Amino acid sequence: MTDVDTRLDAFYADLGSVDLQPLWTQVKNLLPSTPAPAAVPWLWQGETLRSLAARARDLITIERGGERRVLALSNPGLGGAPFATSTLWGAIQALGAHESAPAHRHTASAIRFVLEGSGVWTTVDGDGCHMHPGDLVLTPAWTFHDHVNDGDEPMIWFDGLDLPIIGALDASFFENHPDLNQPVRGFDLSEQMYGAGGRVPYGTTNDSPHSPLLVYRWKQSDAILDKLLARTGEPVASIEFVDPTSGRPALPTMTCALHRVVPGRRTPSRRKSGSSIFVVHHGVGESVIGGQVFRWAPGDMFVVPSWVPFDHEAETTADLFEVSDEATMRALHLFRDETLDQWQGITGVFEPRHLPPS
Amino acid sequence: MTDVDTRLDAFYADLGSVDLQPLWTQVKNLLPSTPAPAAVPWLWQGETLRSLAARARDLITIERGGERRVLALSNPGLGGAPFATSTLWGAIQALGAHESAPAHRHTASAIRFVLEGSGVWTTVDGDGCHMHPGDLVLTPAWTFHDHVNDGDEPMIWFDGLDLPIIGALDASFFENHPDLNQPVRGFDLSEQMYGAGGRVPYGTTNDSPHSPLLVYRWKQSDAILDKLLARTGEPVASIEFVDPTSGRPALPTMTCALHRVVPGRRTPSRRKSGSSIFVVHHGVGESVIGGQVFRWAPGDMFVVPSWVPFDHEAETTADLFEVSDEATMRALHLFRDETLDQWQGITGVFEPRHLPPS
Amino acid sequence: MTDVDTRLDAFYADLGSVDLQPLWTQVKNLLPSTPAPAAVPWLWQGETLRSLAARARDLITIERGGERRVLALSNPGLGGAPFATSTLWGAIQALGAHESAPAHRHTASAIRFVLEGSGVWTTVDGDGCHMHPGDLVLTPAWTFHDHVNDGDEPMIWFDGLDLPIIGALDASFFENHPDLNQPVRGFDLSEQMYGAGGRVPYGTTNDSPHSPLLVYRWKQSDAILDKLLARTGEPVASIEFVDPTSGRPALPTMTCALHRVVPGRRTPSRRKSGSSIFVVHHGVGESVIGGQVFRWAPGDMFVVPSWVPFDHEAETTADLFEVSDEATMRALHLFRDETLDQWQGITGVFEPRHLPPS
Amino acid sequence: MTDVDTRLDAFYADLGSVDLQPLWTQVKNLLPSTPAPAAVPWLWQGETLRSLAARARDLITIERGGERRVLALSNPGLGGAPFATSTLWGAIQALGAHESAPAHRHTASAIRFVLEGSGVWTTVDGDGCHMHPGDLVLTPAWTFHDHVNDGDEPMIWFDGLDLPIIGALDASFFENHPDLNQPVRGFDLSEQMYGAGGRVPYGTTNDSPHSPLLVYRWKQSDAILDKLLARTGEPVASIEFVDPTSGRPALPTMTCALHRVVPGRRTPSRRKSGSSIFVVHHGVGESVIGGQVFRWAPGDMFVVPSWVPFDHEAETTADLFEVSDEATMRALHLFRDETLDQWQGITGVFEPRHLPPS
Repeated sequence: MTDVDTRLDAFYADLGSVDLQPLWTQVKNLLPSTPAPAAVPWLWQGETLRSLAARARDLITIERGGERRVLALSNPGLGGAPFATSTLWGAIQALGAHESAPAHRHTASAIRFVLEGSGVWTTVDGDGCHMHPGDLVLTPAWTFHDHVNDGDEPMIWFDGLDLPIIGALDASFFENHPDLNQPVRGFDLSEQMYGAGGRVPYGTTNDSPHSPLLVYRWKQSDAILDKLLARTGEPVASIEFVDPTSGRPALPTMTCALHRVVPGRRTPSRRKSGSSIFVVHHGVGESVIGGQVFRWAPGDMFVVPSWVPFDHEAETTADLFEVSDEATMRALHLFRDETLDQWQGITGVFEPRHLPPS
Repeated sequence: MTDVDTRLDAFYADLGSVDLQPLWTQVKNLLPSTPAPAAVPWLWQGETLRSLAARARDLITIERGGERRVLALSNPGLGGAPFATSTLWGAIQALGAHESAPAHRHTASAIRFVLEGSGVWTTVDGDGCHMHPGDLVLTPAWTFHDHVNDGDEPMIWFDGLDLPIIGALDASFFENHPDLNQPVRGFDLSEQMYGAGGRVPYGTTNDSPHSPLLVYRWKQSDAILDKLLARTGEPVASIEFVDPTSGRPALPTMTCALHRVVPGRRTPSRRKSGSSIFVVHHGVGESVIGGQVFRWAPGDMFVVPSWVPFDHEAETTADLFEVSDEATMRALHLFRDETLDQWQGITGVFEPRHLPPS
Repeated sequence: MTDVDTRLDAFYADLGSVDLQPLWTQVKNLLPSTPAPAAVPWLWQGETLRSLAARARDLITIERGGERRVLALSNPGLGGAPFATSTLWGAIQALGAHESAPAHRHTASAIRFVLEGSGVWTTVDGDGCHMHPGDLVLTPAWTFHDHVNDGDEPMIWFDGLDLPIIGALDASFFENHPDLNQPVRGFDLSEQMYGAGGRVPYGTTNDSPHSPLLVYRWKQSDAILDKLLARTGEPVASIEFVDPTSGRPALPTMTCALHRVVPGRRTPSRRKSGSSIFVVHHGVGESVIGGQVFRWAPGDMFVVPSWVPFDHEAETTADLFEVSDEATMRALHLFRDETLDQWQGITGVFEPRHLPPS
Repeated sequence: MTDVDTRLDAFYADLGSVDLQPLWTQVKNLLPSTPAPAAVPWLWQGETLRSLAARARDLITIERGGERRVLALSNPGLGGAPFATSTLWGAIQALGAHESAPAHRHTASAIRFVLEGSGVWTTVDGDGCHMHPGDLVLTPAWTFHDHVNDGDEPMIWFDGLDLPIIGALDASFFENHPDLNQPVRGFDLSEQMYGAGGRVPYGTTNDSPHSPLLVYRWKQSDAILDKLLARTGEPVASIEFVDPTSGRPALPTMTCALHRVVPGRRTPSRRKSGSSIFVVHHGVGESVIGGQVFRWAPGDMFVVPSWVPFDHEAETTADLFEVSDEATMRALHLFRDETLDQWQGITGVFEPRHLPPS
């Protein structure tokens, strides 16, 4: 060991003893040339999710304290964290007949995309938003919300939250509502006031960070996707859900979109900074993510980490709901995306995990 | 005449000789304590407008140069100018069966509110916008537009333009399209892309000063007014037509609104800086404007000048379309309005002008 | 006279009798292909303005009611209106030693550009803004303001207001302050808080339509112009006065600028929608406006109507202060400008009006 | 073990086997009622930082690959990460006489606050920004930057970066400049163009997410702080460094501020969502952070994690530079702050770590 080495070792030790670290030894890890996400591309099968949601309905009571019957996607790359990607929480939530989940609020923003069932509404600050398959329901940051199943069949839906972002920013506030379920002022009020395109109550001002429209019905989403597809020769039509009083993303941290993919046409391969969760609403097909083939069917959920190339190809007309952190990336001027010149090709096929035989 | 007077006279004469004027002699006229509009409250009867529009169809050919078969509301207070108020052009336009009006564009913004007829579309930069009674159609500044009647019956509609503002600002540019009628790329394209509340084609950016949605159908306007009325105990429900990608007024200079007035309830008396034209779409009733009673029926058009108090009272459920300069006033931070504490009372009854017996 | 002519005459008469006018006979006047301003290019000599301001000081007392000792530029094209252009009021204001002008406020926005003198401050909502030659002082819409000369010499300054715009929009409100002069909370407060580039009191929010900085000192304007000129090979350096908390024009309706013109270099000929008043602060030279040569010297004021081409050429380094309606035009999305490919050439020389020999 | 327990265990095991996790067992950790930062309040002494920076100058050569001679504050609460708080990187950087640090760019935004030395400039996209003690220098996201010491003495400065945010969002892009040092187009260009309050080159548009002004001189910061203090009876005057063309934070992710604290007056205790690094520029005093007393002197750096109450009390007039994530929190609508009604009191005294005796 040279004298220089000795002095260096002593120096590094001294740095450590006073809570300092050198940059020069770790600059490549700290400042990678392109994003180096820990999260990996992954897929959870709808069949598995549905069956576990049903078992959870039998085993778990919804109570104040536990709050929700929710199974969270836990990306294997994230070291055991209950996060679908480094920035997004994704989950399946189940509510049995005549059950309800208690009212609370938090600074984390949430969206619900309904998978199956009927008879449920989510109350958001007093507005009872009825839920049907394919509907998108918002519970924006710091709005009191509870879920009520007034019907005779269970419902399941997808939950998307910005929890990892809220966590990374140490920005979590949480509060229970004084009542288990908040009073309902009326039903579908936001839809009545803001549901018509380009018409708002006269005198509406837009000083809220989130959309005043809290529910986006499948029926209209379906119709506009059809019209868009009919107009173009593209393999995919895509809509974004926005605040009708500002045109901004419906929530300030997450971007919600719906993609209708034409069978037999591969969408262009692209990548973007930031991550996405896709929920298969209709159709079967496959996505190539980072070179791996992910085959999917209705109810499946899969994730694309930051800057990993991906494309889709449907066998039957497919509707993919997507929630991403694009709104956050844009708000901080960190969003980048590109369509790749060349198809990425296939390097392997993803094998979804199955429950062990019982 | 004193020496001072003599010197003053000489001074004023000298000022005039070098194109100067004193402020102190005219400060009250230049800076009135509240707006002192030259325009007066006025009403044009639908019956008269329709009959003259029909005569115009017989007498006047639509040609390049004359451009449009349009009869403009000429406010008697404005010294012969063809303006409905000091800031707004209002008119009735008539298009006979199988006629068309040539394609041109101008920096003046225009809106059309359809009164009667069928079979017409307005092409706006290649997008053929079908027109039906109660629809609002935009022809934003500097978009090429022409009107085509492909049917067998005539159509009449209301035209609202910001022409007096464009004139006062010396900002008029005008250009003919090379063809009499521009090619139609497709029909109702803007409606297909932007007509659904809160959903836009993914990737939409909003850098245009006007709405990308060019036609607002009566059907949805009607529906949201019903819902709003049902929710409140108010005598009137009002919607504003906005750009669905920004929430801003559909056009940067004019605000468009629709008011549904419940029978037997007087709306609160209010006043605002800036002027409005009202078009009666449905219902009979009256408005008190500056103390004068204006009785109205379908097709009537009436104006409220700046800062003149007004209210409405319907006999049968009434739908009043309104175009105003509020967007301009707000853009320049000059908008003020107030609801009056006390009803203004009635000081007289307006007598509409009738055509002389032929 | 043919039968058709007879019927047409009757038709036009009928239209007039019910306050209607045809568009087709006047479309070219209403919608000219480029702006057709009534105002003409014009120049008022500083020598004349100064001498009449001095006479006004002797003859006219400043009183409540007359409010100000102001001589307004009256453009000969505007039919006797006291306006410099169709959108701008320009004037010279004179305040004698130990005089003051009473406190009032109005929705018209005003700027002051100081020509000569010392010892004066303008109080704006309690903030006493000291005035020195070359300073720009704002009295934004609806701020109480009065002018106080605490010194032993008179002061004159240029007044620029948006009065014609306020008039055209019927948006004038005016109010006297209860006192002849309002109390002064402190001096140059806005400068202390907002005068440093890029630094604002922590927690500043920017919800006012106008700049919180009320006075822009000549010293800093001079310094930045020198630096800009030094960096470029251009014949002119130009700065705009903006709200330091938003970057927007200092006032919502008017744009203020300062141009330093290098001797012996003609600036590119350009035109723009909207009009300007130029005040010569330093230097002699000429401007070609609509082909006419306007020779100028310090204290001269000249105007450029909408869409008229103009350029400048200085004999000695010249500083031209400009106030224009560009902010209004941009707010309404009506601004256009272009640099002309070819120099416009000279078609005549403007002869300024002189006072008759006394 | 009951049957239910057995079934539950099996259920949780099954969840784990398919990469799912229950929410109900960990809701309190995921959604704490107030922020629960892992980072702890901490202080690094200027003396220690300076001495280690000097040793680093002797031991470490600045090279492509290591890029910078930077010692990073490593918060003991963050499990060995080289981050000062969960969202901020803070460090001391040292550049010896006639050394330079290579040109690169990255999506992380950085600020430099100069501590000691002279003769250095930072080139930012070709603009050579001279650095003097107390100056704030920006190297915004994706701008090429290198540091050049052209003088005979070393310089040290504080580096603040949003690296943990960039990391959490998987948004890092990094690129070397082709040359070791980029060419310098000129010196202090941004200062010449945007350094004057409220004056910008005419025609400036503001479509960049960061300030066009790259250096904020101590001299003007000092002057405005003096003026602000003189006007108020407050124990502290605070300025924020903003984009002079928009009023927004100078960088989109970090807020920079400077606080001048009057001796003998304790500032109100407050807390806010998000974290801060403070750098003591002048003065001695103490801060109470989360009940612990942190005594500080020039060159010390200390951190306040999210929602931890803090105040300051100076013995001699103190200048505290602060960089925080407030801009990020506000962009995502997650910022909250409050001034505490009651002083938090003192529960202990922080003992700074010292180097072991050599």
